[in-house]
Parts: sequence; structure tokens; C-alpha cells
Amino acid sequence: MIKKVEVFNENDFSEKQYKKLLVHDSPYFRVINFNFKAGQELPMHSHDFDGQLSITVLEGRGEFLGAENASIKALQGDVLISDISEPHAIRAETDMRVLVTISPPI
Amino acid sequence: MIKKVEVFNENDFSEKQYKKLLVHDSPYFRVINFNFKAGQELPMHSHDFDGQLSITVLEGRGEFLGAENASIKALQGDVLISDISEPHAIRAETDMRVLVTISPPI
Repeated sequence: MIKKVEVFNENDFSEKQYKKLLVHDSPYFRVINFNFKAGQELPMHSHDFDGQLSITVLEGRGEFLGAENASIKALQGDVLISDISEPHAIRAETDMRVLVTISPPI
Repeated sequence: MIKKVEVFNENDFSEKQYKKLLVHDSPYFRVINFNFKAGQELPMHSHDFDGQLSITVLEGRGEFLGAENASIKALQGDVLISDISEPHAIRAETDMRVLVTISPPI
């Protein structure tokens, strides 16, 4: 199995809220692309499961947000790794494309 | 556990061969950044294990190569998904940064 997803072509932006594209889902991992207009955010959330996720900034910049008001600058090429059980959120400062990989795919 | 890796700052390029940065390794997945100068490549390989990998182009362009001379254009934002057991390779046309995620981390 080999497949290619052109994230920059297959997902766009919306003034209403972030746009989500399911890139891949398998027993090994789930890969999701989120596109944010400047100012939009993925609200804080966490799941009580073992596992980890990565968030990679493909374009633009913003912040990764964590528990207790933690804020981590997020620029193109930055990769955040977090336990799934850890509260996490994303806020876009400019238009921003990120890729999230979740394993296992809870 | 939350950590950030600034892939664009923490890895560079070499005229000799591609440069590799281990971004993360856990029981869930391994994340590796490869930087290629134009013309460099990751040779064809595969492993006889269950599991999948993703290859995401962070910057630049090139080709994903597969069995039987398959060649798939790879631009910024493109994500290739492959079984670990499937032969795969990467060739850079321009200087190129990619992020590879392998699950499970064989």
C-alpha cells in the first residue's frame, strides 16, 4: 500500500472555523490536517488513553497551548510531541496548516 | 509529556550525504527528519514488519520512489503513506526537508 495526499491542494480555509482533512486512518496511526485562518484555534482537549501525538507546522505560525496556560511558539517545521492524555490546543497567529499524527488511533 | 523540536533549526544540510535528526522515539512511533541537498537520496529499502510510515515534505521538492520504478512527485505539504514492508525511497530535486513517522517504531 502506497498512497499520496496533497495536503496543500486537498484542504482549504474557512472564515467560520478551522478545516479538517483526514489524511490517513489505520490500526497504526491516524493523520489529520487542520487549516486555521489567523486567530482560529483548536480548543484545549485531552483523552484518557495511552498513546502520543505529534503536531507538525507545515505553514504559518501560532502557538501550542498546554495545561496551566503553557504557551509554546510554533513555527514552520516545528514538531510538538505530546501524550494523548496531556491537555493540548493550537492557536493560529497567521493562516496556518498543521499535520497531526495520533498513535494508536484512538 | 510535551516537547517541541525545531526541525528547521536543529538539523542542517551536508554536501556529503543526507542529514538525519531523530525527533522522537517512543513505543508509539519514531519520528525522523531527513534533510537532502538537491540530488541526494534515501536509497530504496523495506523491512519485513507489520506497520506503516508517513513521509511529509516540509520544504522543497523531489520524488517518492517505489517498487517497479514507480515515481511519485513530492511537493511541500505532500504526505506519502506506505506499509513498512513496501520498498520506498526518496530523491530530492531541490534542497528538501522531510519528516518520517514510523509506527510501530521497528
